Amino acid sequence: MTSTRPPYYLDCDTGIDDALAIAYLLAADDIDIVGIGSVSGNVSAEMGAVNTLDLIALAGRSDIPVAVGAHDPQGGVFAGGAPHVHGVNGIGEVALEHSPVGAIAESAAELIVRLAREHEGELRVIAIGPLTNIAAALRLEPALTTLVKELTVMGGAAAVPGNITPVAEANIANDADAAAEVFAADWFITMVPLDVTMSNVFLDEHRDALIDSGRPVAVALGHMLDHYFEFYVDVYGHRASALHDPLAVGVALGDLPVMSAPVVRVVVDDTSGPGRGQTICDLRGYLNGFPEQSRAHARVVLSLKEDFAPRLLERVLLV
Amino acid sequence: MTSTRPPYYLDCDTGIDDALAIAYLLAADDIDIVGIGSVSGNVSAEMGAVNTLDLIALAGRSDIPVAVGAHDPQGGVFAGGAPHVHGVNGIGEVALEHSPVGAIAESAAELIVRLAREHEGELRVIAIGPLTNIAAALRLEPALTTLVKELTVMGGAAAVPGNITPVAEANIANDADAAAEVFAADWFITMVPLDVTMSNVFLDEHRDALIDSGRPVAVALGHMLDHYFEFYVDVYGHRASALHDPLAVGVALGDLPVMSAPVVRVVVDDTSGPGRGQTICDLRGYLNGFPEQSRAHARVVLSLKEDFAPRLLERVLLV
Repeated sequence: MTSTRPPYYLDCDTGIDDALAIAYLLAADDIDIVGIGSVSGNVSAEMGAVNTLDLIALAGRSDIPVAVGAHDPQGGVFAGGAPHVHGVNGIGEVALEHSPVGAIAESAAELIVRLAREHEGELRVIAIGPLTNIAAALRLEPALTTLVKELTVMGGAAAVPGNITPVAEANIANDADAAAEVFAADWFITMVPLDVTMSNVFLDEHRDALIDSGRPVAVALGHMLDHYFEFYVDVYGHRASALHDPLAVGVALGDLPVMSAPVVRVVVDDTSGPGRGQTICDLRGYLNGFPEQSRAHARVVLSLKEDFAPRLLERVLLV
Repeated sequence: MTSTRPPYYLDCDTGIDDALAIAYLLAADDIDIVGIGSVSGNVSAEMGAVNTLDLIALAGRSDIPVAVGAHDPQGGVFAGGAPHVHGVNGIGEVALEHSPVGAIAESAAELIVRLAREHEGELRVIAIGPLTNIAAALRLEPALTTLVKELTVMGGAAAVPGNITPVAEANIANDADAAAEVFAADWFITMVPLDVTMSNVFLDEHRDALIDSGRPVAVALGHMLDHYFEFYVDVYGHRASALHDPLAVGVALGDLPVMSAPVVRVVVDDTSGPGRGQTICDLRGYLNGFPEQSRAHARVVLSLKEDFAPRLLERVLLV
């Protein structure tokens, strides 16, 4: 008998905020997590898979298949990730016990295609790393655009600056070619950009609550956050962390009351110019309530009605 | 004996908001307007010069030399301007009496260079059209960057959408190559982008006050605004006009109390990609009070402390 709970696939580059996102996803008891794939971004795809496996093992969820995805971006070579943000091991130098379970033999792109066929018209895909695997899956199976029910992408910047160039956000810029393909394909995308992920933050009070809980996953996440907080002092002027990846998962789960999320055209700049990696969102209707656009194919989440941090904390403490 | 009043050169593509800008400039009695040059943008350079000559004649200021500037952008051909915004004649189909005085023989670029040499270290340049003439003057005289005291540019979009593409503003995009040269040159630029010019507007109350004044220049401007207001209904949802060009003149004259104007790096996208014509402003310090940046060379005016419309109205009624 097939489950009637909606099936979710997560594509990630675990990463501290990816770890928070995985925990948020694990806390949802009304969905099926049918697979997780890794991709190079914050760390290598290989390290991202290990971090993912170790984290779900800590949560007692080693039943979820994890596939290793693309090591290199489409047109280039993996540049080494962001150890200054996420630590050398990607999870803030926290040493998780290694999972006895390894990655599956399929690549992440193969896993996506298989799951999309098995759950035809039902699979929800959440991509919180560079879009290399998603683009590769599109090439393996062009019908992916109809097989997949929903695609939610953490990435890009719409009306705020980027985080690795003045206009480019890291997930998109780390594989701008793949992102351009994914955004040019004929499917509807929910995009969760820096606009909303930078304005929702965890502070020391949230970190302390995680650690004080004594719950293994929460404690591990709390210690990871120390590293992340230090990086963000230069960004916010104080210890804090943006909530990029968990926020995208919250949006994908339909948990978050959205304030502003216009449906607009989005193109990814894949030139070699100064705009490379920018998600060019057509927000020209901003003064007039965003009138309907022809060929609009992306819902760009700009703001939420409520602060995300309390909800995230509450959910992670359930794991 | 040389005047001790600061000398100003205006580069424009007259245009309805250019006409407002010229009127604002004419109202300043503590400056010398030493020259005006035209450039193709809202209208052709030739039509822009005629509109400028006719307007200053109406104000009794035919003593100001007007030079015709570049007809075509650097790498291309003038595309015909924006008759849907500014009317076929560029000034909302208002028929001004033709000036008995014609343009001078020099090109606008030549005029800029001559004035910059004559007023070495003192000339204030205000560019409220595409930057074709300014780039041409830079090529004629590379020392222009030090001869000119201040360069104020109306153009670009920093943290708001563009007005002719999702990211590009018309003045910059109409000659992205010239703009890229001007922003790459070694001088300090004050940039007045859509961020501030779209959020300061004239409404019917201002138009009516212009017309009710009975003053010839004000009445002409009031009638021009009718055309402009109709274009902007789709943008604002009601009759209004952005105050692009006069606002840049107000900033250049030092008249306007500025709320936010970070000094940052700015690069113009001159690729042929989807970002062409974007002014890429490095606003990554926005969450932390814009810490000082190395190689920052542009002051980007994002907001004012006071609504500009009352001041603009008051000044224009003096002409």
